[in-house]
Amino acid sequence: MMNTLLLNLNEVQSLLTIEDTVEAVKAGYMAFNRGVVQMPPVVSLMAHKFNGEMDFKMGYSEQEDIIGIKMAGGYWDNPKKYNLPSGLAMICLFDAANGVPICILDGTLITGYRTAAAGTIGALCLARKDAENIAMIGTGMQARLQVMALSKYFNIKNVRVYGIEGQEKYVEEMQSQHPDIHFSATSAQEAVENAEIVITATASHNALVYDQWVKPGTHINAIGCDMEGKQELDPSIFMRAKIVNDSRMECKKRGDTQHPFKAGHITDDNIHAEIGEILLGQKCGRENENEITIFDATGLSVQDINTSLFVYRKAIKNNVGKNIEVFDVNI
Amino acid sequence: MMNTLLLNLNEVQSLLTIEDTVEAVKAGYMAFNRGVVQMPPVVSLMAHKFNGEMDFKMGYSEQEDIIGIKMAGGYWDNPKKYNLPSGLAMICLFDAANGVPICILDGTLITGYRTAAAGTIGALCLARKDAENIAMIGTGMQARLQVMALSKYFNIKNVRVYGIEGQEKYVEEMQSQHPDIHFSATSAQEAVENAEIVITATASHNALVYDQWVKPGTHINAIGCDMEGKQELDPSIFMRAKIVNDSRMECKKRGDTQHPFKAGHITDDNIHAEIGEILLGQKCGRENENEITIFDATGLSVQDINTSLFVYRKAIKNNVGKNIEVFDVNI
Repeated sequence: MMNTLLLNLNEVQSLLTIEDTVEAVKAGYMAFNRGVVQMPPVVSLMAHKFNGEMDFKMGYSEQEDIIGIKMAGGYWDNPKKYNLPSGLAMICLFDAANGVPICILDGTLITGYRTAAAGTIGALCLARKDAENIAMIGTGMQARLQVMALSKYFNIKNVRVYGIEGQEKYVEEMQSQHPDIHFSATSAQEAVENAEIVITATASHNALVYDQWVKPGTHINAIGCDMEGKQELDPSIFMRAKIVNDSRMECKKRGDTQHPFKAGHITDDNIHAEIGEILLGQKCGRENENEITIFDATGLSVQDINTSLFVYRKAIKNNVGKNIEVFDVNI
Repeated sequence: MMNTLLLNLNEVQSLLTIEDTVEAVKAGYMAFNRGVVQMPPVVSLMAHKFNGEMDFKMGYSEQEDIIGIKMAGGYWDNPKKYNLPSGLAMICLFDAANGVPICILDGTLITGYRTAAAGTIGALCLARKDAENIAMIGTGMQARLQVMALSKYFNIKNVRVYGIEGQEKYVEEMQSQHPDIHFSATSAQEAVENAEIVITATASHNALVYDQWVKPGTHINAIGCDMEGKQELDPSIFMRAKIVNDSRMECKKRGDTQHPFKAGHITDDNIHAEIGEILLGQKCGRENENEITIFDATGLSVQDINTSLFVYRKAIKNNVGKNIEVFDVNI
């Protein structure tokens, strides 16, 4: 009972698929909107002298009786200074019945997958079913995972990618991994004007997608903006869009929704739903072919908890991982 | 670089002494009052259906360049339901320069020791040097550790213990461990009236020590009260005492200081100092033989961080513990 399962990145990777992540995240969103998830605000400790920060994201799924915490670093100089990734994340799951830490696992891949799953769930709820053109704003890891995930659920034909760097590399690598999709590097405008689904996955602090480019029927997944001051969308888009948040409270504070909200362009009444409300059938998704829809996803602790819990259970079943003893057995 | 050192309770116990803890906690208090410690408020997740909670205590010592978090359960039914201790705690230390988790260690003993060290430091700063009579209100583990720690620094002759249960067991066990001290079970009043140092270490929600019992020259370590609603001291004592906090902000919210403060009996002006200010020589400690002094200690993250860091460094030096890989080496 006092053993803790340790799962490293390779082991997590061997156990987790994007389809399973989509199901785990869906269940998490619904649990959140059933009111059986406690999620206090994220705690950030800023290490300015190292150009970094540590973020602690805690939650308690009363549905699963699991408490979880993700301890995630954001250190932008890591690659060049330490040959380490900028985003190291470790997740710990506790049995909510007694406080025993049941699993410590690498959170890097889980963060990537659960964020990609968020975008896919947003598109499944809000995008046109016949969407086949993607505008990808961003060229990083998450810009890759978003397309990978979406391609399992939509018949994607074209991905037009825009980024301030790495466009060619993105096209080359993604083209070889997804031969059925045509990838091309374009301007942001060309990508957005030709898309049914627009995905923003950058660390931008300024709008990258402008209102006049967005045609009727477009769905936008606003993924990158998860902090005060970050921004990817022209706030004007919100004034003619159906707005869906993962969490109203979080999106108004640190999602792209913060900008039109703080400027007074929209109020609570303009936020159509939280995504879990749509999944639960309490609110509608897309209602016609001409709506512009936005899913603003800041990332919720319950996504990490549910995805980690899936990995933990599969690891136990498949006898993967290593047991460690944080406490002594005879404590 | 990507290895994390795992230290279980036995290993922590083999490395840590109370004297080293006192030094580590002193340094932590001073760092806090030098302004080089970030300590956001504690995050608690309540598991009401299991009569328990998980508390997350985070901090960043910019002096040591270490970020730490203690994940501590408080599950009162654990002993009878699971044969587990009610308070399981795990601590994780991160290198603040890159976010790498350098150590995961059992936090149970560290919590006990760093809390005992707090009391000893309070007494060293504020009690009469010739104190030899202790009133111990409480009979649990912390009531044992407080005396163990204090006995290294004071010439203690008598410990009079009061508790709603376990008095005889306390006296019997402590007497055999400390043959030079005389232990006796008494009323709270008799214990307090005869003491130069009063220590409260209970989970009480009502005053246990009354104003009229406290004679001039008494020092009180208020240790047990660390949550809103908890209480051990008659608020009237504060009105004639020199009040010292570990953290003003925390003590006004969840220390015993909360009660006279919320009732309006005292204001910020009546709080003499934070303990680190006394250690730094910025404020005075005891000024004469007749003062009544109170040290209200809620427990600060920097105590956990500094004590854990001492254990980690000694473990590295002595080659104790087990290396685990949360991340893959080639991440």
